[in-house]
Amino acid sequence: MSEGNQTASGEPFILPPKTDLPKFRAFLARVESIVDEANVQIIDSEDDISKEKYMDPSKAHDMFHILEKTHFISSAVVAPKNVADVQEIMKLANEYEVPVWPFSKGRNVGYGGAAPRVPGSVGIDMGRHMNKVLEVNAESAYALVEPGVSFFDLHEYLVKHNLRDKVWADVPDLGGGSVIGNTLERGVGYTPYGDHWMMHCGLEIVLPDGSLLRTGMGALPNPNADKSKPPHEQEPNESWQLFNYGFGPHSDGIFSQSSFGIVVKMGVWLMQNPGGFQAYMITFPRDDDLDQIVEIIRPLRISMVIQNVPKLDNVLVSAAIEGHRTDYSNSDKPLTDAELDEIAKRLKLGRWNLYGAMYGPPAVRDTLWSIIKESFSKVPGAKFYFPEDRPNDVALQTRSNTFQGIPSITELQWVDWLPNGGHLFFAPIAKVTGSDAKAQYDLTRRLSEEYGFDFIGAFLVGVREMHHIVCILFDRKDPDSRRRAYELIKVLIAEAANRGWGEYRAHLALMDQIAETYNFNDNAQMKLNETLKNALDPKGILCPGKNGVWPATYRKEEWSLHKP
Amino acid sequence: MSEGNQTASGEPFILPPKTDLPKFRAFLARVESIVDEANVQIIDSEDDISKEKYMDPSKAHDMFHILEKTHFISSAVVAPKNVADVQEIMKLANEYEVPVWPFSKGRNVGYGGAAPRVPGSVGIDMGRHMNKVLEVNAESAYALVEPGVSFFDLHEYLVKHNLRDKVWADVPDLGGGSVIGNTLERGVGYTPYGDHWMMHCGLEIVLPDGSLLRTGMGALPNPNADKSKPPHEQEPNESWQLFNYGFGPHSDGIFSQSSFGIVVKMGVWLMQNPGGFQAYMITFPRDDDLDQIVEIIRPLRISMVIQNVPKLDNVLVSAAIEGHRTDYSNSDKPLTDAELDEIAKRLKLGRWNLYGAMYGPPAVRDTLWSIIKESFSKVPGAKFYFPEDRPNDVALQTRSNTFQGIPSITELQWVDWLPNGGHLFFAPIAKVTGSDAKAQYDLTRRLSEEYGFDFIGAFLVGVREMHHIVCILFDRKDPDSRRRAYELIKVLIAEAANRGWGEYRAHLALMDQIAETYNFNDNAQMKLNETLKNALDPKGILCPGKNGVWPATYRKEEWSLHKP
Repeated sequence: MSEGNQTASGEPFILPPKTDLPKFRAFLARVESIVDEANVQIIDSEDDISKEKYMDPSKAHDMFHILEKTHFISSAVVAPKNVADVQEIMKLANEYEVPVWPFSKGRNVGYGGAAPRVPGSVGIDMGRHMNKVLEVNAESAYALVEPGVSFFDLHEYLVKHNLRDKVWADVPDLGGGSVIGNTLERGVGYTPYGDHWMMHCGLEIVLPDGSLLRTGMGALPNPNADKSKPPHEQEPNESWQLFNYGFGPHSDGIFSQSSFGIVVKMGVWLMQNPGGFQAYMITFPRDDDLDQIVEIIRPLRISMVIQNVPKLDNVLVSAAIEGHRTDYSNSDKPLTDAELDEIAKRLKLGRWNLYGAMYGPPAVRDTLWSIIKESFSKVPGAKFYFPEDRPNDVALQTRSNTFQGIPSITELQWVDWLPNGGHLFFAPIAKVTGSDAKAQYDLTRRLSEEYGFDFIGAFLVGVREMHHIVCILFDRKDPDSRRRAYELIKVLIAEAANRGWGEYRAHLALMDQIAETYNFNDNAQMKLNETLKNALDPKGILCPGKNGVWPATYRKEEWSLHKP
Repeated sequence: MSEGNQTASGEPFILPPKTDLPKFRAFLARVESIVDEANVQIIDSEDDISKEKYMDPSKAHDMFHILEKTHFISSAVVAPKNVADVQEIMKLANEYEVPVWPFSKGRNVGYGGAAPRVPGSVGIDMGRHMNKVLEVNAESAYALVEPGVSFFDLHEYLVKHNLRDKVWADVPDLGGGSVIGNTLERGVGYTPYGDHWMMHCGLEIVLPDGSLLRTGMGALPNPNADKSKPPHEQEPNESWQLFNYGFGPHSDGIFSQSSFGIVVKMGVWLMQNPGGFQAYMITFPRDDDLDQIVEIIRPLRISMVIQNVPKLDNVLVSAAIEGHRTDYSNSDKPLTDAELDEIAKRLKLGRWNLYGAMYGPPAVRDTLWSIIKESFSKVPGAKFYFPEDRPNDVALQTRSNTFQGIPSITELQWVDWLPNGGHLFFAPIAKVTGSDAKAQYDLTRRLSEEYGFDFIGAFLVGVREMHHIVCILFDRKDPDSRRRAYELIKVLIAEAANRGWGEYRAHLALMDQIAETYNFNDNAQMKLNETLKNALDPKGILCPGKNGVWPATYRKEEWSLHKP
């Protein structure tokens, strides 16, 4: 136990299901014998929780809790020193039938942080000790990382080793999260390598029974590996990070957004330094320019004239990065169009603002820019900027960094739009058409305002589809604000499903509802997931309930938070 | 039963395992009641096999058999009319415990064609009736196809509907195969969309128990779907072909190179017409230029200066496309370096010949070409050609078509290098370095020659790795030639594994051996595969033994063809 905290004889705020205190203590004592007592922490009282006296404030709870702070909470957190520890912990969890919930950095912000779906699960802090960049190969342009490596860590590794002139790592909006964690949750970034899952290559996985697997070419031993070492320390195959598929069924996918295994190493493809870079911003004056903007984006994106994921923000995204709501209005009602126009004017923004970038030597960028500029000039009043034109524009300066793989956490500022700000993401997928964008905007803005919130959102355009990210900002110390936010997102999920739009990712409190919208042919997909879950984890100890997948050992109708 | 063939009262050449004739007949009678008798064909005598009197000569057997022609052979072939038929057939196969082996077009040439791994399996001819291009969306650049759609079919659809000015479909070397079949076997093509598995989007799958699933966004119902129709006919979600992942565990991968389900519909991303195209060929005079060539390719490929999969052929690939072995030599020994130099001279080729292409408007292509030409000019004696420089060069003219998505079967000509030509592919994966290429070439050429064969091979460079495709050409009517080819490939697999190189795909006769090379940590990957197999197909009726995955209902040690 770490200094100043309770020992294993202490009492947790909540016990795991079907686990009494003696069994819990016996389990933790066994875990302590593996990881050392400094790496076991009981979450022992509400007082501690409210003071956030964890090993790390981001751990074991949801920093932006939408339910009561103590709802999604662990009974204890353990931090394995290495992969062998993880294997042993899983064996013990099976023996004691205690549910566990691994997390990498606990920065799954907007989706539940480090908190477990089943209250009282034992958190496994994968990132505390396993936080090394194991390899960067600049020639073949890949890295091999452990769960605790953040986007900051990977970037700083490249900087420290003078590798940025050769390779860049893609980063999402916020750089503090785990590369592995974000990729497994199928998060996206903003260089041409922004589809993190597509750009991963090779996994090392601890299965629920504690066994260890390498996927793809990693399943082929390196002939020079020292077989006297434990498997996870053995030198991997040289093609592990080069070719994803290997031989036979390709299993990587079932370990993303899943509860089928714990990823302990992952390969990630790096982008070769493109030999030149230029971010840009285009502002569009009118709210109803949205349809036309998206129609212009689609062919440019599919043809890769727009080489990365462009981000189309409504005006309040930038406003929230630049200041608090009270800096703009004293109204307690959702901001009106007149007020939004006023904010846009004050910040020299459009009602919609498109951020993008061009990659390559000057000749390539000039060609692309002439096409991009000509295309968007069709929108009356469109204005074109480079970062040097707006040196004090925090949003644009930050975007310019993000687009070239330089991480930041600047944009987390938007959480302070309201006092005690918490946020929740509603993220439906749609086809890239002006009419879909318009329909999603109309629906989400109307409902946001009905529930007393401003609409703050962005459209991100992937290779073929749009992620619409609606950021529901609430006051986490105001139960009514939390209640309204929770009601709003439940209505949004239902209304979106009625229109054929589904979410790509979910907060803990919404996993059941979203999973149930993917119900084609009598829930065929969920039946497959449950079959796989029960085969790989017959005792249901790894992340029960994650993304709506309940093992046979849990009565789904009892545990589901979705009561239609 | 189709005219002129046996009825279900006939006797097959071989029965399925654990199945006597009455049970077999009872099973087929039930199948006939579903698909109609014209769609059931018993494979009834060796005479019929030798005459290749199937529904289609490419079906139900391996046209390039390396074992006896009658080894890998079906007891019968059935052709479902639609997806509901497939579901019913799977239910019957479970009821009767008869193994089935679906194939799309039966053109898995070099890997076993349409033949089943377990002799006597009932072939399911997926492509005979289910052969429609269900949708092409040129705006969002995708297609939705059935198993019987070949690369020719898809291309011709684009041509017929005047869509080639908008979108291209990627094609592999030979255009006669199924788009779905090739993609599921993780075949590759030659445009920037050449990684077919990466570029698929959305699957509809019949699971071994006969249930029907749509993956990704397909799991979210289209709100306008007519639910009175059977599920497979219901209008799919509009994002099904746009976003691969959907919500929760992403299961597509486990249905590639696998026996876990039958894919009945698949989405495939199309490439936007790039607005310009130019193929090129670079010849390199010396055998030992290989190392330097590959070192030049790697950075150009990773940076996408080389935008597609380039193909680096040894001289005999083109020689075999242009003529028979006897056109070049009367020697019955492997061709010597002097003879190879002579052939190169005669055909105005190098000992190595690189085929590539540039995509985009003239300004883009000019920029790329200047870099490519400068880079490869470092190899003394390198010569640069465009197709217009060599109008009679069949290999180059064919490549130029393939690189722009125009299919052909011209290159199958190389099979006639020897009389009664059969071929077998040995396809190891390696990192893209000159030394790996050299080492693979040295090993495979030396061993090929030891076993009395010429080395005919090519290196294909993917996003980060090399596929080395060695084409073992043998006389399929000469038992000694077949025996030597089989021995050779077994030695190659073992020697490659000793060096850390693994194959990405396998002929039926070699699946067990190759699967066993992927044995990291006590065969952890195979254990996972077997767990999934037994959970999804407890009776082991779908493709038992495919890629070395034996269900619990088969004794692996008895069925494996690999006897170390």
